[in-house]
Amino acid sequence: MRLLKLNKAFTLMESGPVVLVTTHDGEKNNIMTISWTMVLDFTPVFAITTGEWNYSFAALRGNKECVIAIPTVDMLNQVVGIGTCSGADTDKFAKFKLTPVHGKVVRAPLIKECLANIECKVIDIVSKHNIVVLEGVVAYVDSGRKEKRMVHAVGDGTFIVDGRKLDRRKLMASKIPAGL
Amino acid sequence: MRLLKLNKAFTLMESGPVVLVTTHDGEKNNIMTISWTMVLDFTPVFAITTGEWNYSFAALRGNKECVIAIPTVDMLNQVVGIGTCSGADTDKFAKFKLTPVHGKVVRAPLIKECLANIECKVIDIVSKHNIVVLEGVVAYVDSGRKEKRMVHAVGDGTFIVDGRKLDRRKLMASKIPAGL
Repeated sequence: MRLLKLNKAFTLMESGPVVLVTTHDGEKNNIMTISWTMVLDFTPVFAITTGEWNYSFAALRGNKECVIAIPTVDMLNQVVGIGTCSGADTDKFAKFKLTPVHGKVVRAPLIKECLANIECKVIDIVSKHNIVVLEGVVAYVDSGRKEKRMVHAVGDGTFIVDGRKLDRRKLMASKIPAGL
Repeated sequence: MRLLKLNKAFTLMESGPVVLVTTHDGEKNNIMTISWTMVLDFTPVFAITTGEWNYSFAALRGNKECVIAIPTVDMLNQVVGIGTCSGADTDKFAKFKLTPVHGKVVRAPLIKECLANIECKVIDIVSKHNIVVLEGVVAYVDSGRKEKRMVHAVGDGTFIVDGRKLDRRKLMASKIPAGL
C-alpha cells in the first residue's frame, strides 16, 4: 500500500461503497461493516451512522480513532460475515482471515487485504442522529491490486458491483477541487 | 410512477447514488445535484450535506421540504449540468427539459423523468457540519422504466455506473429489516 494524497481521499468514499471500519479498544482490534457513510468535506471529513447497537461504538467513542478500510467485490462474503457477527465474542481478523497492519497515527489497524485505508480521528459525535464525524489523517491505496471494483449495499441483502466508468471531467470542470 | 412502501424507500439511497434534490421557495422550483448523502434510519431518515453555498439551501431551511429524485445513467449529462449552474439565474426544469410533478405532501416537485422520488420533510439541520436531516414521507418508483442503473460520483469528474447485482440475502438474513 502506498500513501495517497489526503486531498484525494474523499474520492475513495464519494461513490458510497460498503466499507469496513476498524477500531482498537486498548486491548483488541475489531471490525464493523458500514454502508451508511457520507463525505462532509474534501479535506477529508466523513460522517458515518453508528451507535450503541454496534459493539465497536464504545471503542470509537472512547479513544476517538478508527480506520476506514475499503474492500472490493472479491471480499464480499467477508464483508457480509463481518456485518453479521459481533466483536463481543468474535476475533473478526482471525475469523475472516484478514491481516491487521499498523498505521502511522491511530492505533486502529489498517486491513492489508483492502483496496484502500484511511486513518481517521473522531472529531465529533452528533448523538441525536447517531452520526460520528471523522477526519481523515492518512490515506493509503493498494494501486498494484488487480480487483478494484467496490460494492454498494442496497439494504435488502443484495449488492451492486461497480460497473462502467464515465468521464464528465470537462462538463464538471468548474466543480472539481484543484489538484484532482 | 407507483407508490413504494415507505419501509423500502431507504433501499433507493443506501447504495449511494448521485441524486437530484428539488425545492420550491414559494415562487419557483429549483433542483440541485447532491452526491453527499447517507441513510440515517430505515423509517426512512436521510442526511445530506449542503449549506449556504447552494442556492437551494434557503428554500430548504425556509419551508423545510424537498424531494429526493433519483436519476439513472441516461440522465447523467442533465445531472452534471444541474450541478454546475445555479437556480439564482436558471430555471433548471426548463433548461434541462425535466417535468415537475405535484407530490402528495410537499410543494417541492417530483421529477417525472427520474427512476424514483421521495417526498421529504426537513426534520433537523446540524449547522456545525452542514448536515440536513430529512424524513421521507412518500416514495414513488417508476417500475416500468427500462433503464434502472443509477450512477455514483467519484468526485473527480468521473462517475461509476451500477454494474452486476449480487445476492447475499441468505448470509445477511439476520440483518435485513422485516418486510423487505
